[in-house]
Amino acid sequence: MDHPKDTECKNFILSIKLMAKHLDSMAENFDLDSVREMLNNIFAAESIFVMGAGRSGLVGRAFAMRLMHLGFNVYVVGETTTPAVKKDDVVIGISGSGETRSIVDLGRIAAEIGSTLISVTSNKESTLGEMADTAVVIPGRIKDNGGGYLERHMRGDYRNLTPLGTSFEISSMVFLDAVIAELIAIMGVSEADLKLRHTTLE
Amino acid sequence: MDHPKDTECKNFILSIKLMAKHLDSMAENFDLDSVREMLNNIFAAESIFVMGAGRSGLVGRAFAMRLMHLGFNVYVVGETTTPAVKKDDVVIGISGSGETRSIVDLGRIAAEIGSTLISVTSNKESTLGEMADTAVVIPGRIKDNGGGYLERHMRGDYRNLTPLGTSFEISSMVFLDAVIAELIAIMGVSEADLKLRHTTLE
Amino acid sequence: MDHPKDTECKNFILSIKLMAKHLDSMAENFDLDSVREMLNNIFAAESIFVMGAGRSGLVGRAFAMRLMHLGFNVYVVGETTTPAVKKDDVVIGISGSGETRSIVDLGRIAAEIGSTLISVTSNKESTLGEMADTAVVIPGRIKDNGGGYLERHMRGDYRNLTPLGTSFEISSMVFLDAVIAELIAIMGVSEADLKLRHTTLE
Amino acid sequence: MDHPKDTECKNFILSIKLMAKHLDSMAENFDLDSVREMLNNIFAAESIFVMGAGRSGLVGRAFAMRLMHLGFNVYVVGETTTPAVKKDDVVIGISGSGETRSIVDLGRIAAEIGSTLISVTSNKESTLGEMADTAVVIPGRIKDNGGGYLERHMRGDYRNLTPLGTSFEISSMVFLDAVIAELIAIMGVSEADLKLRHTTLE
Repeated sequence: MDHPKDTECKNFILSIKLMAKHLDSMAENFDLDSVREMLNNIFAAESIFVMGAGRSGLVGRAFAMRLMHLGFNVYVVGETTTPAVKKDDVVIGISGSGETRSIVDLGRIAAEIGSTLISVTSNKESTLGEMADTAVVIPGRIKDNGGGYLERHMRGDYRNLTPLGTSFEISSMVFLDAVIAELIAIMGVSEADLKLRHTTLE
Repeated sequence: MDHPKDTECKNFILSIKLMAKHLDSMAENFDLDSVREMLNNIFAAESIFVMGAGRSGLVGRAFAMRLMHLGFNVYVVGETTTPAVKKDDVVIGISGSGETRSIVDLGRIAAEIGSTLISVTSNKESTLGEMADTAVVIPGRIKDNGGGYLERHMRGDYRNLTPLGTSFEISSMVFLDAVIAELIAIMGVSEADLKLRHTTLE
Repeated sequence: MDHPKDTECKNFILSIKLMAKHLDSMAENFDLDSVREMLNNIFAAESIFVMGAGRSGLVGRAFAMRLMHLGFNVYVVGETTTPAVKKDDVVIGISGSGETRSIVDLGRIAAEIGSTLISVTSNKESTLGEMADTAVVIPGRIKDNGGGYLERHMRGDYRNLTPLGTSFEISSMVFLDAVIAELIAIMGVSEADLKLRHTTLE
Repeated sequence: MDHPKDTECKNFILSIKLMAKHLDSMAENFDLDSVREMLNNIFAAESIFVMGAGRSGLVGRAFAMRLMHLGFNVYVVGETTTPAVKKDDVVIGISGSGETRSIVDLGRIAAEIGSTLISVTSNKESTLGEMADTAVVIPGRIKDNGGGYLERHMRGDYRNLTPLGTSFEISSMVFLDAVIAELIAIMGVSEADLKLRHTTLE
């Protein structure tokens, strides 16, 4: 292994610049109809359920935290006290490939229950994308071949590791924070209001 | 509440564009000496421990997953089987303000033990930043006043909710993925190699 | 290290028998007034929050799952979408010593907020026990000296490891499942009813 | 709903007494050959992986914590930095019915990889029990019909809720703590030694 102490950090800088460029292009070309549908679904939902495997699961949890701060009734699938999904709920499934087995399986159940399924994926033609009521497309290359997340993980199959450039997880985290920004604008909530609303304890 | 169905998504688009611009500027101005120090610390470490509260904790876990994929001995503070920290280990603490109580307290213990402490924060002059052996600065406004994360959370004090623009968590996730890109370049690991190295099970 | 292949498993058997004996004695001598108070608090609560560190946290989550199954509004402190605590909520803190720092700190905030605090501890005279509105005492020796859980963990201070005999975590898990049994009896819910109530999705 | 304030707590007391009786009988009749096999497997393993869904997963994590305290190389399947399983590892799957889909699927992969699979279940003739190299039987009625844990959970199918009596999770937690007690006896580790070994930080 080379001593890193004198690295010029070219890949470090390039990685951040490529991400910035990717996001800028994403902002220009996003399908805003899918965003409007997602916003309408969120406002209409009784409860919102977020699910994703691995790093997509972490991004989903970061989004769920913000929805909770805004006062929505929101749960992360797989956490301790998450209740059953009902017909009037919205389920948001996050998967770069749209083929992560556990997320596809749970998406199918959400559909059976009659709840509204939103997919956040890079692949609209994937199983998850095709099954969704609203399919949001995050631009980026499609990185894995699907299958079970924990199963691939147990085998050490990390094909979705990307050394450079566009990362589905970062793109989707930026997308989801932009959804939060739009939600706040629609709700007319200023930062100050949020603070007041939440710190007044009675 | 307005009907969102006809929103022009101005805040949505602006939020992504501001983030892209922020990242581009971050790439131009990053203190690369702190990155080189961090890379050297990671290569020299016996084990690497990552810690953060709330959304910063999620970002830390996304980084820890990648380090594990690359073959490093890495743990997330607070997970079930995370062992005790030892002198030759590196502890990476992530906190936008650098004042999150639990992270500051654990940073102090890491220092007492004699392990190397790396802070990832927007505030070099914070308690965590001042205490660190290597202080990495993520540009961005400083969003909270510190205190205990769970304690503020229990009180409903969500002052760090940002409706628009720079997000410490996204900036630090992009930074940490760029560190991974540089690690891969230094280690000479191609994506194909990674796959082979990990799927050959014996 | 001895080869274990021929062990007579004396400690294995003794450990289970001591636990059985301890539980039998616990059933005979439990302070039922504290149980009735806890039941009344649970029925009166708007929402129920459960918290504990380490293995006590796992026991708390097992209890929270059951409360959710029974239809209560329940959250685990520290999980992604757990909201802020309010005045009409009940907070249940689980700590063998009653001195685990994070739990004591959060208990203090619960008290400030004006919510009802129930402590589940082996030590009624502990900081958590003294501060609680309802103090449930789980018989057993007091195993640790308090302090911060993650802090002691980071230092490798595992003094609460008990080779034999009474375990606070098992005793409290049996206690909490017994509370569930009593809740079910009071609510008049048969197993069949539970099943029907939950699987009818509309 | 009846006012619980005057309940005699009959179900509460009965629940604890039944559990004590069940554990006493478990101690008398346990298949010690399976325990010896499990102990030998643990000592021979390069790394130990623990997995379970829902409350069984919590019990597995409580066991994994203790193994880590004793110095074993141990991981919980599904946590952030858990590496891939290799041939010389041991995988411990915990499932009351032995039919929980995710655990059965992961057990199959563990077998394919060539690692040693230990099942902890009430049903030796289950898919998981039949597939295991070492099948440990926890006495108790078999409570669920298998299927995917998260899938049943999403549907609100909580048939494994037991109002009274034997609980697989408590029985298996007591069993696993008894395995720890036997491990400590074999390793010749006194409580004092454990403390010293772990608190000397260099």
